[in-house]
Amino acid sequence: MKCDHKIAVIGGGSWATAIVKMLSENVDPIGWYMRSVYITEHIKRNRHNPTYLSSVEFDTDQLKLSNDINEIVEYADLLIFAIPSAFLKEELEKITVPLTNKIIFSAIKGIVPETGLIVGEHFHKVYDIPYDQIGVITGPCHAEEVAMEKLSYITLACQDTEKADCLGKYLSSRYINVKVSDDIVGTEYAAVLKNIYAIAAGMAHGLGYGDNFQAVLISNSIREMKSFIKKVHKMKRNINNSAYLGDLLVTGYSIFSRNRMFGNMIGKGYTVKSAMLEMNMVAEGYYATKSAYKINQENGASTPIIDTVYRILYENKDPKKEFQQLTDLLN
Amino acid sequence: MKCDHKIAVIGGGSWATAIVKMLSENVDPIGWYMRSVYITEHIKRNRHNPTYLSSVEFDTDQLKLSNDINEIVEYADLLIFAIPSAFLKEELEKITVPLTNKIIFSAIKGIVPETGLIVGEHFHKVYDIPYDQIGVITGPCHAEEVAMEKLSYITLACQDTEKADCLGKYLSSRYINVKVSDDIVGTEYAAVLKNIYAIAAGMAHGLGYGDNFQAVLISNSIREMKSFIKKVHKMKRNINNSAYLGDLLVTGYSIFSRNRMFGNMIGKGYTVKSAMLEMNMVAEGYYATKSAYKINQENGASTPIIDTVYRILYENKDPKKEFQQLTDLLN
Repeated sequence: MKCDHKIAVIGGGSWATAIVKMLSENVDPIGWYMRSVYITEHIKRNRHNPTYLSSVEFDTDQLKLSNDINEIVEYADLLIFAIPSAFLKEELEKITVPLTNKIIFSAIKGIVPETGLIVGEHFHKVYDIPYDQIGVITGPCHAEEVAMEKLSYITLACQDTEKADCLGKYLSSRYINVKVSDDIVGTEYAAVLKNIYAIAAGMAHGLGYGDNFQAVLISNSIREMKSFIKKVHKMKRNINNSAYLGDLLVTGYSIFSRNRMFGNMIGKGYTVKSAMLEMNMVAEGYYATKSAYKINQENGASTPIIDTVYRILYENKDPKKEFQQLTDLLN
Repeated sequence: MKCDHKIAVIGGGSWATAIVKMLSENVDPIGWYMRSVYITEHIKRNRHNPTYLSSVEFDTDQLKLSNDINEIVEYADLLIFAIPSAFLKEELEKITVPLTNKIIFSAIKGIVPETGLIVGEHFHKVYDIPYDQIGVITGPCHAEEVAMEKLSYITLACQDTEKADCLGKYLSSRYINVKVSDDIVGTEYAAVLKNIYAIAAGMAHGLGYGDNFQAVLISNSIREMKSFIKKVHKMKRNINNSAYLGDLLVTGYSIFSRNRMFGNMIGKGYTVKSAMLEMNMVAEGYYATKSAYKINQENGASTPIIDTVYRILYENKDPKKEFQQLTDLLN
């Protein structure tokens, strides 16, 4: 297997920064696009991202940094997208150089708000990228722990597993274990849905439910996730593998998860709007809830947890009453 | 279904106290045996257990308290055992009145050290109790949250589900949801094995592994638990139900779990003996590890996590090296 791709990362947030750090163990040079001129200049001068994972020091000779997305897309033949799904459409619209011959891995754990598609589907349907050139990078993986070089396992999914194997070579290190999967749809939906369940876990916490209930909620969540994904793309998968259950656990049990925090505020009585304002950002799970709810309206899996979160976020229903009803449906 | 059993709880610890609290919502009188004369007298005078869940107030008119196990066993026809497995044999040997016609539910999450049997098997093999008179009460359920009346789900398993249904009526309340199962062997093994995985989670934490690795460890644990139990008793079960996965989660992610704390001390460099001395008790998972390891030597499921914990606890192997080896086996 010949692995000599030119690689670039699109995004300047914490997950993008963590991925550049992983790559820096093996790849030279690494293309890195981000919007912010200030941050690029800061990295060039001070060798670290001032806003995210600022403890990580980079060898700037190894980085091909740019604020011009076309320069970076043109340079690379394997692109890793790691920007919030809410900004994806806008960034992609800047691209004027050809995309169709690129290998594109998505490290975005969300649904494109404008199209309601998961990122892989968006690239396929809107940009005509063939499915065997599309892949997914998924956890369980907090960026902060990558910065600290704590042992983490990531899953790379691609129909063409040779491409995933190559990317695995670029990302593996003493603190990164890589697993390859061919379930691109399932792993991506898992990464999206887990944010909804993290919102639910946060809501439950905010409403005063304890750890006993959280354990019931999470064990119902993984069963619900299994049914949901099975309807979207039926194939043999073990939902208890790290890319599905592990990813759900690391998010659902993390007090640092932005989705869980968002849910917590709603559970404590904030309105959706004021929670968003307070957090100064939109949690990925907010969009995911709407899309997942709509997708499942057609597919008909039993998803009482997603339905509950949807009614609270989009139909202004009372979290306390909705959760009381939900508790009767869980087991 | 006629449910008019005379019920008693055997044990004075936190889980026994929580079960008496649950019963107190529906049952009058409740038989309650414990060894300690001091604690019985304290409860009679002050309406609460001074040592465990001391915030819970009992109506002492509702309690038939005794330090004489024979008095309580003779009184009741449905007995709930909730004492540490290490003391079970000793307590049972005090019993001189007949046991064979009693319904016996075990709320003990451990293996009887002297026989290496799970509690249900111990009652069956050593005391000739027919299997349709034996049941299991399992979580996910921290006693402390029952004391606070936080919504909790418990599973009652019995081959004769009518008996479980009756006990469910006695235990259900606005804060206790009951689920009935016929998988007495599987639910009991799950309750036993989860303590081993909680030790492993504690060891990983003590060794400095982070949340990313914990999520991988727990998602591997539930797959390992599934394989282990399947070899012991093959039947159709969803390992992601609350009695299996939920119980693993509430223990594995709890910083209050004694098993996790025990593992944490070992991971930090304590010897097994000094960790036990420091904790002033033996974690249930310590015995469980030895028995589970031996049982599986015959059954041959792939159990790298149990094997690792066994080698550290019983073969004096170095936790750091053992976990380094383990990380290559997980995925």
